[in-house]
Amino acid sequence: MELQGYQRPLRLGMVGGGQGAFIGAVHRAAARLSGDFDLVAGCFSSNPDRARQSAALIGIAPEWCYVDYRDMARDAVKIGLDAVSVVTPNFLHVPVAQAFAEQGVHVICDKPLAATWDGIDALQATLRRRNVVFVLTHTYSAYPMIRKARRMIVEGALGRIRSVTVEYLQDWLATSIEDAGNKQAEWRTDPSKGGRGGAVGDIGTHAFHLAEYVSGQHCESLLAMTASPVGNRAVNDDARMLLKFANGATGSLWCSQVTLGARNALTLRVCGEKGALSWAQETPNQLVVADTGGCERLMRRGEQPGEGSLPTGHPEGFYEAFAQLYRDAASLIRSEDLTPSSETEAGEISGLDAGVRGMRFIDATLTSAEKGNIWVEM
Amino acid sequence: MELQGYQRPLRLGMVGGGQGAFIGAVHRAAARLSGDFDLVAGCFSSNPDRARQSAALIGIAPEWCYVDYRDMARDAVKIGLDAVSVVTPNFLHVPVAQAFAEQGVHVICDKPLAATWDGIDALQATLRRRNVVFVLTHTYSAYPMIRKARRMIVEGALGRIRSVTVEYLQDWLATSIEDAGNKQAEWRTDPSKGGRGGAVGDIGTHAFHLAEYVSGQHCESLLAMTASPVGNRAVNDDARMLLKFANGATGSLWCSQVTLGARNALTLRVCGEKGALSWAQETPNQLVVADTGGCERLMRRGEQPGEGSLPTGHPEGFYEAFAQLYRDAASLIRSEDLTPSSETEAGEISGLDAGVRGMRFIDATLTSAEKGNIWVEM
Amino acid sequence: MELQGYQRPLRLGMVGGGQGAFIGAVHRAAARLSGDFDLVAGCFSSNPDRARQSAALIGIAPEWCYVDYRDMARDAVKIGLDAVSVVTPNFLHVPVAQAFAEQGVHVICDKPLAATWDGIDALQATLRRRNVVFVLTHTYSAYPMIRKARRMIVEGALGRIRSVTVEYLQDWLATSIEDAGNKQAEWRTDPSKGGRGGAVGDIGTHAFHLAEYVSGQHCESLLAMTASPVGNRAVNDDARMLLKFANGATGSLWCSQVTLGARNALTLRVCGEKGALSWAQETPNQLVVADTGGCERLMRRGEQPGEGSLPTGHPEGFYEAFAQLYRDAASLIRSEDLTPSSETEAGEISGLDAGVRGMRFIDATLTSAEKGNIWVEM
Amino acid sequence: MELQGYQRPLRLGMVGGGQGAFIGAVHRAAARLSGDFDLVAGCFSSNPDRARQSAALIGIAPEWCYVDYRDMARDAVKIGLDAVSVVTPNFLHVPVAQAFAEQGVHVICDKPLAATWDGIDALQATLRRRNVVFVLTHTYSAYPMIRKARRMIVEGALGRIRSVTVEYLQDWLATSIEDAGNKQAEWRTDPSKGGRGGAVGDIGTHAFHLAEYVSGQHCESLLAMTASPVGNRAVNDDARMLLKFANGATGSLWCSQVTLGARNALTLRVCGEKGALSWAQETPNQLVVADTGGCERLMRRGEQPGEGSLPTGHPEGFYEAFAQLYRDAASLIRSEDLTPSSETEAGEISGLDAGVRGMRFIDATLTSAEKGNIWVEM
Repeated sequence: MELQGYQRPLRLGMVGGGQGAFIGAVHRAAARLSGDFDLVAGCFSSNPDRARQSAALIGIAPEWCYVDYRDMARDAVKIGLDAVSVVTPNFLHVPVAQAFAEQGVHVICDKPLAATWDGIDALQATLRRRNVVFVLTHTYSAYPMIRKARRMIVEGALGRIRSVTVEYLQDWLATSIEDAGNKQAEWRTDPSKGGRGGAVGDIGTHAFHLAEYVSGQHCESLLAMTASPVGNRAVNDDARMLLKFANGATGSLWCSQVTLGARNALTLRVCGEKGALSWAQETPNQLVVADTGGCERLMRRGEQPGEGSLPTGHPEGFYEAFAQLYRDAASLIRSEDLTPSSETEAGEISGLDAGVRGMRFIDATLTSAEKGNIWVEM
Repeated sequence: MELQGYQRPLRLGMVGGGQGAFIGAVHRAAARLSGDFDLVAGCFSSNPDRARQSAALIGIAPEWCYVDYRDMARDAVKIGLDAVSVVTPNFLHVPVAQAFAEQGVHVICDKPLAATWDGIDALQATLRRRNVVFVLTHTYSAYPMIRKARRMIVEGALGRIRSVTVEYLQDWLATSIEDAGNKQAEWRTDPSKGGRGGAVGDIGTHAFHLAEYVSGQHCESLLAMTASPVGNRAVNDDARMLLKFANGATGSLWCSQVTLGARNALTLRVCGEKGALSWAQETPNQLVVADTGGCERLMRRGEQPGEGSLPTGHPEGFYEAFAQLYRDAASLIRSEDLTPSSETEAGEISGLDAGVRGMRFIDATLTSAEKGNIWVEM
Repeated sequence: MELQGYQRPLRLGMVGGGQGAFIGAVHRAAARLSGDFDLVAGCFSSNPDRARQSAALIGIAPEWCYVDYRDMARDAVKIGLDAVSVVTPNFLHVPVAQAFAEQGVHVICDKPLAATWDGIDALQATLRRRNVVFVLTHTYSAYPMIRKARRMIVEGALGRIRSVTVEYLQDWLATSIEDAGNKQAEWRTDPSKGGRGGAVGDIGTHAFHLAEYVSGQHCESLLAMTASPVGNRAVNDDARMLLKFANGATGSLWCSQVTLGARNALTLRVCGEKGALSWAQETPNQLVVADTGGCERLMRRGEQPGEGSLPTGHPEGFYEAFAQLYRDAASLIRSEDLTPSSETEAGEISGLDAGVRGMRFIDATLTSAEKGNIWVEM
Repeated sequence: MELQGYQRPLRLGMVGGGQGAFIGAVHRAAARLSGDFDLVAGCFSSNPDRARQSAALIGIAPEWCYVDYRDMARDAVKIGLDAVSVVTPNFLHVPVAQAFAEQGVHVICDKPLAATWDGIDALQATLRRRNVVFVLTHTYSAYPMIRKARRMIVEGALGRIRSVTVEYLQDWLATSIEDAGNKQAEWRTDPSKGGRGGAVGDIGTHAFHLAEYVSGQHCESLLAMTASPVGNRAVNDDARMLLKFANGATGSLWCSQVTLGARNALTLRVCGEKGALSWAQETPNQLVVADTGGCERLMRRGEQPGEGSLPTGHPEGFYEAFAQLYRDAASLIRSEDLTPSSETEAGEISGLDAGVRGMRFIDATLTSAEKGNIWVEM
């Protein structure tokens, strides 16, 4: 028998993302969930103790744990690295990518690309020369309904595009939490650490990318008004822009991290001469499509083949809920103190009793229906 | 340095879930995403060729690929199995679980537990004797907001519970697709294969479990009306029940696989004397809580620590979108035909150009704002 | 010139609905808004002082103010009455209607029709003999989108109806407010005053009517479970029913006045073999229509001619907002203390200044756009 | 007995608003619904035949029907006019208002105030001299939840205002319907008839008024980009503005009549340092209020006394539905061909049979519940 479709997992390294880092953990979860990568090496910190501790927790063997990313890049062939995830602070993205690209290692890099232009041309040249893949993790562009929207527009479903409107609103910086010791807020509001991009750099770039990505239109010029209404911040935390696109379309972008009531409210509306699309990140599985005849249609992920890996109506958080059950099981197994028959009463996790109860439910239902809709005890 | 918190991954086997099976793939993705398990062995089919093919695709070494689950159970110590996922057809759940439990292997079993009562008492006895964990995958009970709802009720936030109302509606069986060759519909509508449970067994059990799980109330008796409005089905595809709970609360349950416009519309409303909760599976990250003062509050996952692993406002499909980027990267790496600088124009995946464009966007925005809100070319 | 289409207003009397009565005021507002009726006579109370006071406030001349509805009925010809609105307590509906029908006066009667069967056959006979119109105000059946839904079903848009599900939930009786002196709660929860119908009589009848009205199906039998979870009420305040329809369709009805978080949550879902409709009273201008192809369409009032008297997108509360401006104007006129130029700053009502500001806004906008998108002072 | 609170209706005249005019009919309905005005005179057209025909249809006596508004203004004392509604084409608003204000008649004027500045100063002077009320019908400012929002902000519920964002989107001009004979589109897109304001004048003014009205902030300057993407229009049909407010707040406004999928989508978001409010005209009965603690609360009209004239949960379209029943009754009465007992089967209007059916429903429900939840025939 011929094996068809078999593909060995790619060997992945990671630079950055040690203990306590948020986005590194997300990258690892995403790599695992994809089923395409094995994380085999890491440079999780420049502090040797922290690097080793993180590696151990993540399950990386000590021999593949590095404290200098340059050493790790040099060992790329020895490790057998196919790709590296770059999840360092922003100013290191380009040098780290450069070091691995030089070795022919493909790069998956968190956004934004960089805070300055230093080294970008050289990186571009190296990518070409070594024929190395470089993927920037613009996560929002990977939602199935965003890709569907993009394809619909490419295929002409909206006709000529007339306007593109995008908002990305959060409220976590609505008070001066940087003065109260919030680390995430501290570096973002300090231009010496997070750059002078402020909210524009942090989330505006996501919104801008999405606007061009979905609409397929190139923004030719913009006019911006920035604001910093909270405390005495040295960077913007709110910005509004007018946009002009190459094809004559107009648009606007509003990004804000100080708008109360908004958590991660990234919304997009693209209007063409034949139709319009709207999408909101907090309900990512649906797309509303309007036409010139007054019809508005709710499209849901999964109605068409290839739109995500779960059936329609199953939000993709379904995977996470399912994974939680596996985590629950692992936790029980590791504690080994479960009295299996008591779990329904005491705990949050379904066991055999829950299964028995479900069977009784089916029996009771069918009995009630068959006997003329009478009450049946459970 | 002392390593703290390190936990080796648990070694997982799987029975069932070969090529083309839906729920097996979901179990594997969930196990990977959890970060707690390594899938090391499998019995994916009783057909040797299909078993080997599936194992290869999944990345299981040939020596840990079995065609008879009893052989695999016997090898449990040799494989070093900590746990097994049982994702076979329902009638095999109990014998498979029994075989592994006998060997002291913990069991994660897809629902429903079984179609008949055969072997359940023996299984229960074995679980106790071998002190083996048994987890039934009632996925919906693992959503963070469902667990939060359950805890709120346990802690008395709603006061005495007065009513529990649950619906689970789908529409995929609204036409006789079993006559058109749909395999999933065929076995579910054939009592000799899927049991006589019909929609009650397939999805009603989920709804019933959720009703008891969240409300903390024990259903004492039910009265049911089943229906089979589509074609000449031998099992129910729609059922409505009245419920009475031990504490005097009343309730109802409606499950249907023939209600047009519903994809996976599992909704729950629990009303107490001090408050009420409502939740819908298609927007699982939110919970609406009403009190006696006319106030309705929207609670979102992540507002409190421990509610899922992502910040509030990030639907958990965020992981899946992120994983898609990793899949994209793997696909590019494997094809190796990317011209890295052209991806923004041609493809769906952000590369270096996208990063450069984001940096230009930040620059243009700050320049426009600093120069008095003028147009800046991109 | 020939006048075409002229129709004199119909002369309307009212029985009941004096000072402090809620539904009488709604009937009068509806009669005024319709443009088809002039209220010319009334019997607003059996207490002469209250009757006169109410008549004066409503603007009824003293000679057409009655304290005994039988006198008013006897004067029907003298008054020139075309129709009478019956908004008395329920037990008087039938005798009042009878008295006026005997005189050939058309009857518009609040629901429910009656608490007992006394006099109904006689009323029916009189209506036929005198050829008198009798309209029961099932308000919810008059929403444009409900009538559209009904017509769509009549015309076969859903195919054969399979199920009808209706809920009518409120929360105003969720605590024992009758013990705290709430008059509306007192009579409704006292079977000697409001009948033994409880929530079933008060709101269940609306839900039941809507279910039959829209679906076009005749309910043949029902099975009910009633509850009274609050305090020691002698009538039901919550009820759930299973329904069987003449064509074989099944359904359910839940009415409750004790479900926290629900104000006036009347919702309907009708599912047929070719499509399904859903509607919610709190967003009455829209109808969601699903088909067998997975398409869900949002239909809005006013997309088709004849669906209400306002353009689509204008909720019908638009009339009420507009009427509020007229009330504001009347209030200003009657107080005559407005300094017209100061209203924008001080008050809630737009005056000349607001108009001037709007003109400046247009000027500033066009100037900014024409001069290359520069800042223009307002 | 002393009559308390009696107020005679105010005598109202109308200029403009003859047959076929939309907004005149809305003004008349609003005046009727308010209960504060009697329409007693009108100048509905400068064409004598059309004026007379309109007056007759509206129910105005021939002696109070005018063809020249100046004649009507001169007769103001004779007619006993308290107020006049000005619903003419925009260019006549100011001269008509001037003529009546000179006579001491209060003015209710449709928006926008005017197309040019001619006569406005004189009108202002006259209003002051004659102490005449002038009300501009900015309808959206009269929704109860808008007034509540305004009051909340005045009272400091949001703290210092940081940003104001308003959108008013429609789609009825998304195609060149003016070339297909649509009258409303024709004059609006012809600068010689509708002025050069385009969408900015037609709907932008409403949005701008609402932004200042609710936020209580004075817009100091704006920067605008207008567009005319459809056909070869001589006026804008889409415009975006950046706004700066006197207190330092920033904001933006987008108005468009070419955005597919939007009917009358006027939305407002005001964000302060302590809270934020959002409102949408198509669901006018609710207001979402966020605070700095991550709590979002849904406020509904009617929860507090004085918020509109209907209980919470009753959208104000309830009045219109009720009025429809009165129109139905009038139509039946005028046709006089109803067979009263057959209406349930044949027609859309509830009659005696519907009332009887409701009583049977109550009986059946109580019987079923009392007899142990058995099926009862209807």
